[in-house]
Amino acid sequence: MDLKALTQLLGEKVKTDPVTLTAFSTDATPEFKATPEAVVFAESRDDVVKLIQFANENKVPVITRGAGSNLAAATVPITGGIILVMTKLNRILEISKSEMLAVVEPAVTNVNLDNAAAEYGLMYPPDPGSKTVSTIGGNIATCAGGLRGLKYGVTRNYVLGLEVVLGTGEVINTGSRMVKDVAGYDITRLLVGSEGTLGVITKATVALRPRPTISKYGVAYFKTLADASVAVDAIVGAGILPATLEFLDQVCINAVEKFAAIGLDTSAGALLLFGEDGDSDDVEIKTQQMADICANPAGVISVTRAKNVVEADQLLFARRCALPALAREASLAVSEDICVPRPLLAETVAKIAEISKARQLKIGVFGHAGDGNLHPKVLADINDPAEVARLHAALDDIFNLALDMGGTITGEHGVGIAKLPYLERKVGKEQMYLFRRIKSAFDPNGILNPGKTGS
Amino acid sequence: MDLKALTQLLGEKVKTDPVTLTAFSTDATPEFKATPEAVVFAESRDDVVKLIQFANENKVPVITRGAGSNLAAATVPITGGIILVMTKLNRILEISKSEMLAVVEPAVTNVNLDNAAAEYGLMYPPDPGSKTVSTIGGNIATCAGGLRGLKYGVTRNYVLGLEVVLGTGEVINTGSRMVKDVAGYDITRLLVGSEGTLGVITKATVALRPRPTISKYGVAYFKTLADASVAVDAIVGAGILPATLEFLDQVCINAVEKFAAIGLDTSAGALLLFGEDGDSDDVEIKTQQMADICANPAGVISVTRAKNVVEADQLLFARRCALPALAREASLAVSEDICVPRPLLAETVAKIAEISKARQLKIGVFGHAGDGNLHPKVLADINDPAEVARLHAALDDIFNLALDMGGTITGEHGVGIAKLPYLERKVGKEQMYLFRRIKSAFDPNGILNPGKTGS
Repeated sequence: MDLKALTQLLGEKVKTDPVTLTAFSTDATPEFKATPEAVVFAESRDDVVKLIQFANENKVPVITRGAGSNLAAATVPITGGIILVMTKLNRILEISKSEMLAVVEPAVTNVNLDNAAAEYGLMYPPDPGSKTVSTIGGNIATCAGGLRGLKYGVTRNYVLGLEVVLGTGEVINTGSRMVKDVAGYDITRLLVGSEGTLGVITKATVALRPRPTISKYGVAYFKTLADASVAVDAIVGAGILPATLEFLDQVCINAVEKFAAIGLDTSAGALLLFGEDGDSDDVEIKTQQMADICANPAGVISVTRAKNVVEADQLLFARRCALPALAREASLAVSEDICVPRPLLAETVAKIAEISKARQLKIGVFGHAGDGNLHPKVLADINDPAEVARLHAALDDIFNLALDMGGTITGEHGVGIAKLPYLERKVGKEQMYLFRRIKSAFDPNGILNPGKTGS
Repeated sequence: MDLKALTQLLGEKVKTDPVTLTAFSTDATPEFKATPEAVVFAESRDDVVKLIQFANENKVPVITRGAGSNLAAATVPITGGIILVMTKLNRILEISKSEMLAVVEPAVTNVNLDNAAAEYGLMYPPDPGSKTVSTIGGNIATCAGGLRGLKYGVTRNYVLGLEVVLGTGEVINTGSRMVKDVAGYDITRLLVGSEGTLGVITKATVALRPRPTISKYGVAYFKTLADASVAVDAIVGAGILPATLEFLDQVCINAVEKFAAIGLDTSAGALLLFGEDGDSDDVEIKTQQMADICANPAGVISVTRAKNVVEADQLLFARRCALPALAREASLAVSEDICVPRPLLAETVAKIAEISKARQLKIGVFGHAGDGNLHPKVLADINDPAEVARLHAALDDIFNLALDMGGTITGEHGVGIAKLPYLERKVGKEQMYLFRRIKSAFDPNGILNPGKTGS
């Protein structure tokens, strides 16, 4: 690559010093690392257009990233090339209370958007575990889910329109400010989850919702995660689609308690966090219904309602810190993201316990139980090659298990590089080829994040 | 086309008699008509694959259709070729109460799916005005909306996975049974709204929701549709996203009353139908809040709550029969489908009234007010060429108005042929080219419904 020409084009925004290159050689995925040739900090859409035109002419890969919290190595520059950092494009351009939408630059963090919406009595529902750091652009690139998916859906349900730079440097505006708009192919939703392989998002219009004024939570402990899964299925089977239905297994409970000391029952095999939000007595009714359902299944140990906001926040905190808490438990901790049909949740978690035993590895399982979305975190000693090999075998087992259950290899983290080996088994060879043809339609020279998502 | 070879391939399923060809030369769009060379009634996925392979080899257009209730001429065979009729693929294959989903063949009607779901305490939320005849396959092909869009979203929010025959005859399975699944590009959502130009849907997995047990409705009359629009904006501005928020102007009120004689206030300039559903006291609270808000704006004439199910059903019926009632008012009645940002609704309907006056044509306006989705129906005497010319000028005015408001040329009916002349102004030239490249990725020989949706 002609770094001099790039620097002439974008000046000080281009960094090639070793410290910066090293800083942008990884994301939040363990075990994947590759050094870019340059890092560009874009400050405007025009910077992005200039960079993409340069990269397209010179056939140089461009890997776009925001906070770098990706968990599938989707922003690791395995092909070399340029890391395009969007973090300076972080303004909320507009919040319309009456239209219930926001127009944002891509690097606004999820939590900043939600907090800004709160000032208008609104909320931005998708709330990935990474919400304090991850950006809306990154959330769109992976179709981020989160803790409220069962009731409120995922990122694709909230993206109304996008300003996007294609792989040729052309700028298109997709969608609009309205929910109902069927003028032409749904490029907006195709871009959601495309992991920076089809275009660079420079602006997004996202839907907001009225912010609930009441939230109620409760916690149930069970002997096993399979017992908790039975309760989850019973809750949804009763026609309740609550705001929160999350679980942790004993490995996670112990890790969280060690990390945060919030008085969890570490003798229990599983914790189920349930909660509802809204504006009326219905919140109380639904939360109590869930508590009553949890009291029934075999294996229940205790059911407690959060008495106040402090207790509720502690429970949510316990769930949210499962990932970082587990990460401290071992020198290598790989977090997976399978999703299975809800009625098969109990069988799936029981089989993950078998995998843990067979591979002689600690696996902490937590996740969005209501969605059937599990995050098994496999722990190993990075300095023990045999254990690392068993970890990879265990991941392989977990992906195969998900597919055998009619599930998927990724519910909300994306394919990236980490799950690429399993993608064809999920979608079939014909669809893999279709993905490549679609990729060409957006990015004929294949410069945008090449090699990710099967592109 | 070698009709003999086609008949050898598919036998009695191929019809070429003049009566059948004529029957399939139109859909529900006035003024568009073209005779196909053959009509094929598929009875299985294999029939579809055989037909598409034949058509692909022989470069013959295939226009897929279900009930033929399309309002944008998307199923009129303007290029000649074969009409592929899916109506025999009309089985509900599975309803899973615990997963809240259904697996259906494409020609199941919307109402049959919803009724089947009701037996499990579930519902299928998208409810286009055509729900008693239109099929799920057709609903997916247009991303059908309906009366419950504001609260429940549109078809794309409910499609989980598809079995699809591509333009090459290859079969792919997109998505899965889960809401959270980001394995590869979102082909599922790209197919939603693609009007049969990217593939033929042979099976669909769609999400269901718990069926509300309580519904409450009310009706408010206003002096003008602009007054009613102000009330709509106030309701949503108060953080209420109700199940129903629909309006009719005086032209519609009169047409419906003449058609159905249900005691509407024909002296009023506009009728606003509001309603909420759910399972708790919240339904009553929200419905009364809406009634109270409606009582405030200048121009309100009366606000009445439906006293019982019979009265509520009459109000819904009044709204649902606006389209057929208006169709009886003139020998040519063209129904449009623009959508504008909700705060611009009052200004938009006032400008449509100006267009009506300037073009000396009766225009009945009704629509999904909560979504900003308007269906202006322009009426003319088909035997008066000058009036027909003014009708086309009025449609042109209406599309331009929608675009000037930052709105769209179609909210839920699709582009088809009817709105093709306005598509580039909406999406831009670059995106039009992108559409064509995407089309090629699915259908390299361009046999699937060529010329529709800008493909």
